[in-house]
Amino acid sequence: MTIERYGLFETCVKGPSEGNPFTEQSISAVFKSKNETIETAGFYDGQGRYKVRFMPSFVGEYEYEIRTSFGAEEKGSFTVTEPGEGNHGPVHTAEQYHFAYADGTPYYSLGTTCYVFWLQEDEIVEQTFETLKNGPFNKIRFCVFPKHYIHNFKDPVTFPYEGHAGDRSWLNEENFSYFMEVEGNDFDLTRFNLAHFQRLDRTIERLMDLGIEADIIVMHPYDCWGFSHMTREQDDLYWKYVIARYSAYRNVWWSLANEYDLLFTKKLEDWEHYAELLCRLDPYQHLRSVHHCRTPYDFTRPWITHVSYQRIDLYKSAELGTELRERYGKPVVFDEIAYEGNIDNGWGNISGEEMTRRFWEAALRGTYPGHGETYANEDDILWWSHGGKLHGTSPERILFLKKIIEETPGHGLKFIPESWDAVTAVPETVLYTGQYKIIYFSFMQPSFRILDLPKDKQYRIEIIDTWNMTVTDGGTHSGWTKIQLPGRPYMALRLTLA
Amino acid sequence: MTIERYGLFETCVKGPSEGNPFTEQSISAVFKSKNETIETAGFYDGQGRYKVRFMPSFVGEYEYEIRTSFGAEEKGSFTVTEPGEGNHGPVHTAEQYHFAYADGTPYYSLGTTCYVFWLQEDEIVEQTFETLKNGPFNKIRFCVFPKHYIHNFKDPVTFPYEGHAGDRSWLNEENFSYFMEVEGNDFDLTRFNLAHFQRLDRTIERLMDLGIEADIIVMHPYDCWGFSHMTREQDDLYWKYVIARYSAYRNVWWSLANEYDLLFTKKLEDWEHYAELLCRLDPYQHLRSVHHCRTPYDFTRPWITHVSYQRIDLYKSAELGTELRERYGKPVVFDEIAYEGNIDNGWGNISGEEMTRRFWEAALRGTYPGHGETYANEDDILWWSHGGKLHGTSPERILFLKKIIEETPGHGLKFIPESWDAVTAVPETVLYTGQYKIIYFSFMQPSFRILDLPKDKQYRIEIIDTWNMTVTDGGTHSGWTKIQLPGRPYMALRLTLA
Repeated sequence: MTIERYGLFETCVKGPSEGNPFTEQSISAVFKSKNETIETAGFYDGQGRYKVRFMPSFVGEYEYEIRTSFGAEEKGSFTVTEPGEGNHGPVHTAEQYHFAYADGTPYYSLGTTCYVFWLQEDEIVEQTFETLKNGPFNKIRFCVFPKHYIHNFKDPVTFPYEGHAGDRSWLNEENFSYFMEVEGNDFDLTRFNLAHFQRLDRTIERLMDLGIEADIIVMHPYDCWGFSHMTREQDDLYWKYVIARYSAYRNVWWSLANEYDLLFTKKLEDWEHYAELLCRLDPYQHLRSVHHCRTPYDFTRPWITHVSYQRIDLYKSAELGTELRERYGKPVVFDEIAYEGNIDNGWGNISGEEMTRRFWEAALRGTYPGHGETYANEDDILWWSHGGKLHGTSPERILFLKKIIEETPGHGLKFIPESWDAVTAVPETVLYTGQYKIIYFSFMQPSFRILDLPKDKQYRIEIIDTWNMTVTDGGTHSGWTKIQLPGRPYMALRLTLA
Repeated sequence: MTIERYGLFETCVKGPSEGNPFTEQSISAVFKSKNETIETAGFYDGQGRYKVRFMPSFVGEYEYEIRTSFGAEEKGSFTVTEPGEGNHGPVHTAEQYHFAYADGTPYYSLGTTCYVFWLQEDEIVEQTFETLKNGPFNKIRFCVFPKHYIHNFKDPVTFPYEGHAGDRSWLNEENFSYFMEVEGNDFDLTRFNLAHFQRLDRTIERLMDLGIEADIIVMHPYDCWGFSHMTREQDDLYWKYVIARYSAYRNVWWSLANEYDLLFTKKLEDWEHYAELLCRLDPYQHLRSVHHCRTPYDFTRPWITHVSYQRIDLYKSAELGTELRERYGKPVVFDEIAYEGNIDNGWGNISGEEMTRRFWEAALRGTYPGHGETYANEDDILWWSHGGKLHGTSPERILFLKKIIEETPGHGLKFIPESWDAVTAVPETVLYTGQYKIIYFSFMQPSFRILDLPKDKQYRIEIIDTWNMTVTDGGTHSGWTKIQLPGRPYMALRLTLA
């Protein structure tokens, strides 16, 4: 048997289906090769099937040994081959503020949010994957649990636990409230609904095939079924199950929660506890962060690999990237900078122009922006929660930005305070000092720009229209230079040492 | 002889013209009526003419006595009548954060900046007054001294002192520098050029006739002639002359400086000294402030009547109005929130949309925005410095805003923290609590808004398109209300108790 490096190895052992296999049984395995020894837990997948998943980080021969609580044992071996096309391994941090795949390929995170897209009807899910396939996004944030929220009155196709949900058909815009418990919920919080998790398996696999990182939101407050305020024991069962089931997917990132500070029954020590579980039980040390509503988590905590930021200030979001990098000393991902759309909430009604502007502001500061879309429509299918189709004007521009960023030498950009009235970005790596620069004018609309270039060097100047997605040659220049611009917002200049 | 209340009384005494009348002679007067006794200095106006100006604040009989250093004396009397149409007296602060004319009429400051418009050729000056006549602005900021700056390479039509200026004809965009001294300046800093000040008299009078406040910038750093770094004695001579000459104009405001913190030869004690002169020598206590570049003056100083703010943050300007009111406890005038235009400098290249947005943000927070315009053109005539014609799209919208603000009950608005994602403004005066409200969505583009109105009251709702300048009836509502909006930026709702 062969498997490619960073691929998903899975094996299955038959065992008891009586009693409660989730709480009464356990399975674990040790994988060994010349370069690594990995111990990992498995999980129960129904009908007496106990599974172990593993991601090999090296090419070569592997042996494994499985142990179970029910007496079954298994030994085996397989060969790990070179990764296939598009498989660069898991993403980790690089050069302090950036990301790279395990094989060293730079990873410029341009994410989107579709909280419960995989819990919609299959037709919508297919639409979502079609949209993702053709879009700019290489990371997607989504929840394991369903979402109780405005525009989310329809039940998910599956629930995470066995049992059934109370009736929500009476909900509407006017009588809706957050943090409610509907009557009639009847879930067994010790028995996972395997249809739910098997559906999630396929979701993560399909994202992997598209080269999209799966930023899994493990907990969130938008709940009416009781999943947001389980006991410590129930939480631990859930966390361990999710870690055992999903760690071996190379494209997994862990978001402990969406808006952790709205989970009012949880304390800081709970979050630190979940973090401890993750650090201990995820053998691959996937990226970890936690997302806030009003109060950012202390992103300096050692277990946090990157900042997952939601803008707090209505007016300034991505523009704060430079300060956030300095404050936390880690990669900054703006997982929420408001969504393009037209619903009434201020987090969901910025224009495509403003979304695009925020993406450029973030990217040029060496931070990583995230998209989302909330255009009101008759079917109440909003990308931000349900996926489906995109209606906005920013995704196309984000694809253009992606192309520009991919042309940057090294792992990413950083802001330099060269001028007070433009965003000036250069490669993070000092290796490229003086060789490459992007100057972005954001909402400002200069009709010309004076540059004081070194007199002893020639720079090729390109005029980038970030909105109309054009790159125009501006000639090669040296010394005092006046560059004509169209006097429209959203322009940038790119300087490359000739 | 009769003069109207808040009008300009002027009398002239003949005296010596030999020697230096500016430094060797003096003239002063006392004006008395039943209600006030005002002592004021006069000034030399050339050809042996010594003048005294006075503004009566009450209707009735006045007597005056003039004393001079050269032995001449004069007594006289006049009758003060009710003010004529459009004469509401000088502007003072009202309700802590706002302004009103002396007769109690609210004054909603909507200013503009034309630094040296009155020092341009007459044809341009006439254009400026024509533009002002038809425009929205009721305050204009301008300098007494000429301006040495980019786009300002042409000499002014007059200089403030006798003598002549060094040659600047060699200046261009590339070799220009700030804070330089050109060669060949030869000014007598003890002798004012009366053509200059007589021209300024006419300027202030014409502004008065148009109902426009003259925000006189007494000092500024953009100089190559030596006016920005005179001795204490020369400064005092200048300050006293300007105060004596202009205090009696009812429409005068004092701005001690533009960008005081760039006058590197002046210390804080110098500014406090000028302030002391103003407080002591301006008998009418016109409004006083001082404008900064990077470091705001301590606007809590008792002599400062209002905040004259230049935005420091590239992204947030008028949005800080609420915080600035709280910090300083005085009216906040945003004398610079960047200018509409397309030059390369970040202070001079925002769009008409952004300028209009900043005006609304400021006005709804109960603060007072200022306009300026810097569109590059072949003649290098930019409104911001030279006046002339306006080319931008914001002035028309500012006129529309003015109409809306004038419909506000009381002296002005204030921000209330009713929602995190819209600017909600109500009248400052508690008298109107619950009667009137404007909700502004700024750059956001909701296609609907849910309002939770009191169930026991009816509100008339109007939909204001601040960009297209329309007010549309949205019906009368009570309780939970969903208002449809066009899903474009720059919309507002106005609620009036029915």
